[in-house]
Amino acid sequence: MVRSAGQLIRRQGISGTGMREIVADADAPWGSLRHYFPEGKDQLVTEALLYMGGVAGRMTERALRSDDVSTPGQLFARIVKGWRDEFLSAGYTAGCPLVAAAADVSANHDELRGVIAQAFELWQEPLAAALESRGVPAERSPQLAVLAISALEGAIVLARIRQDVGPLDVIVDELAPLLDAATGLHRDHLGG
Amino acid sequence: MVRSAGQLIRRQGISGTGMREIVADADAPWGSLRHYFPEGKDQLVTEALLYMGGVAGRMTERALRSDDVSTPGQLFARIVKGWRDEFLSAGYTAGCPLVAAAADVSANHDELRGVIAQAFELWQEPLAAALESRGVPAERSPQLAVLAISALEGAIVLARIRQDVGPLDVIVDELAPLLDAATGLHRDHLGG
Repeated sequence: MVRSAGQLIRRQGISGTGMREIVADADAPWGSLRHYFPEGKDQLVTEALLYMGGVAGRMTERALRSDDVSTPGQLFARIVKGWRDEFLSAGYTAGCPLVAAAADVSANHDELRGVIAQAFELWQEPLAAALESRGVPAERSPQLAVLAISALEGAIVLARIRQDVGPLDVIVDELAPLLDAATGLHRDHLGG
Repeated sequence: MVRSAGQLIRRQGISGTGMREIVADADAPWGSLRHYFPEGKDQLVTEALLYMGGVAGRMTERALRSDDVSTPGQLFARIVKGWRDEFLSAGYTAGCPLVAAAADVSANHDELRGVIAQAFELWQEPLAAALESRGVPAERSPQLAVLAISALEGAIVLARIRQDVGPLDVIVDELAPLLDAATGLHRDHLGG
């Protein structure tokens, strides 16, 4: 049910996703909802968002282990490629669940806002660590993780709206060299 | 009414914003709605989104005329500062109307999706032109406009979720030098 909720939120946001729909999508008996989520929709949504944040973190760690990822720029390209492949194979209906949730709740639901912030951390921290493991200095890696996530989130919105992966390609073209330069290997060229 | 709709969409998205609320916010008589927008909510939302895209474009052009904007990096910093100032003075309740609309409709409303894409163009084209007027080569300016908009949109989401302007500061720190380097003044440092 947590997984179903996460996937439905990607397409419809929180307010657009009903409990009945989640239960039906998960093919679960209605009674199990009350059993596992006695506090109702907010509890299920909270678990779904933290689960999805964790998925993004684990995908980052998995990307790090790919054969073709040796630099921070290649890591970023690999992460973006996951979205690119999904859009091209499955269409543009599902975006990032955290952005969908943020658009929905940030104005008037402070508790859930905190959950979304926490879910973003579950992505940002492994990404900063991954950048560091590929040579980005510790003092810059949190900042570059925020830049990478910001650019990717914005490009996902643009790609879905245009039904075109172009914006994803643009951010890789522009940011992969910037991330690689941060390793200091190119320090000479940036020092001037 | 178009302006009220735009502002309400920033906070609540499209599906969360009712026609009655727009009319009340605009302090307009209920009958005027039917008069000016005979096709109903979709027509009003369409005009509101195109209006907001135009506002972003005009703000970009206005930023270009500020005394402290002579490089593309300074232009970007100025645009981001508009958001920073608003968050610090008015709080984090209102985000970008185009992202709010995108989260709401992209999955199941193809016509409105096209309108949002058009509204983004009303921002991206003046931004690309502005970058070019500050020395970015014509062949790179559309790409850098997409990068700048992507990063800003993502950072707006993160800033609102964290209730902290930090992500906006990060993207300026990282992208202003990249935009300035694109003018070719620093070509020597990037050529290696």
